[in-house]
Amino acid sequence: MDVPREKLFRCWHDPELLKQWFVPKPWTIASAEVDLRPGGRSLVVMQDPEGNQYPNEGVYLEVVPNEKIVSTDAFTAGWKPSGKAFMVAETLFEDAGNGKTRYTATARHWNAEDREAHAKMGFHEGWGMAADQLEALAKTL
Amino acid sequence: MDVPREKLFRCWHDPELLKQWFVPKPWTIASAEVDLRPGGRSLVVMQDPEGNQYPNEGVYLEVVPNEKIVSTDAFTAGWKPSGKAFMVAETLFEDAGNGKTRYTATARHWNAEDREAHAKMGFHEGWGMAADQLEALAKTL
Repeated sequence: MDVPREKLFRCWHDPELLKQWFVPKPWTIASAEVDLRPGGRSLVVMQDPEGNQYPNEGVYLEVVPNEKIVSTDAFTAGWKPSGKAFMVAETLFEDAGNGKTRYTATARHWNAEDREAHAKMGFHEGWGMAADQLEALAKTL
Repeated sequence: MDVPREKLFRCWHDPELLKQWFVPKPWTIASAEVDLRPGGRSLVVMQDPEGNQYPNEGVYLEVVPNEKIVSTDAFTAGWKPSGKAFMVAETLFEDAGNGKTRYTATARHWNAEDREAHAKMGFHEGWGMAADQLEALAKTL
């Protein structure tokens, strides 16, 4: 991405920024809670154009400022097992020099069935479009 | 437990001590790896009296020295989803005054089926016996 990693990290860290890029338009984020520390709560409420809301809750597992964020929906706050351990998301922000960033977002699942279900939900396209929105927003900072 | 929590915590932290109490005799611990920090690897190889070995691998999720340890088998090191997200173990060491400790070990599961399977494996008796061994060992420190 053609933007320094510190700005990308801010777009993950600040809920008001995260709301602007985290889902592909015309979906929106109705609300976001970002307690960015190991065990901290992540709650992102996605909203479709009809106004239906889809809460996504989880916790952060590892946070290295400006470098790495790992989160999962396997737990809710307090390390309570969630309804289902579906995925772990790892995002890496690597300094690529000249104010650029190598940005890598990886989703891992507990089994092949869940991975395929996630792909069928449009994971690659969705995360790709969100990443484009992220880069565009970070450039304005 | 009739022993200060610092000594109990040492028995969790030091692999050579952990090997002496972590499974009810006549089972033994063949080897133990204790990287006691969030995301750190936990590998405990249990051994039955016939010499068959049963590796238990996972990661620590949260560590507060002398107060709290949370671990899970849902991940291997590097936040890789494991073969199965079976349980989360939370151990609390609360200062009960007069050199005593309120020791609470809780296992949580992702579904009722796994919880019942764990109970049938002898969870309550096994963890209870191990806790007695822990207290006895900590008293010798």
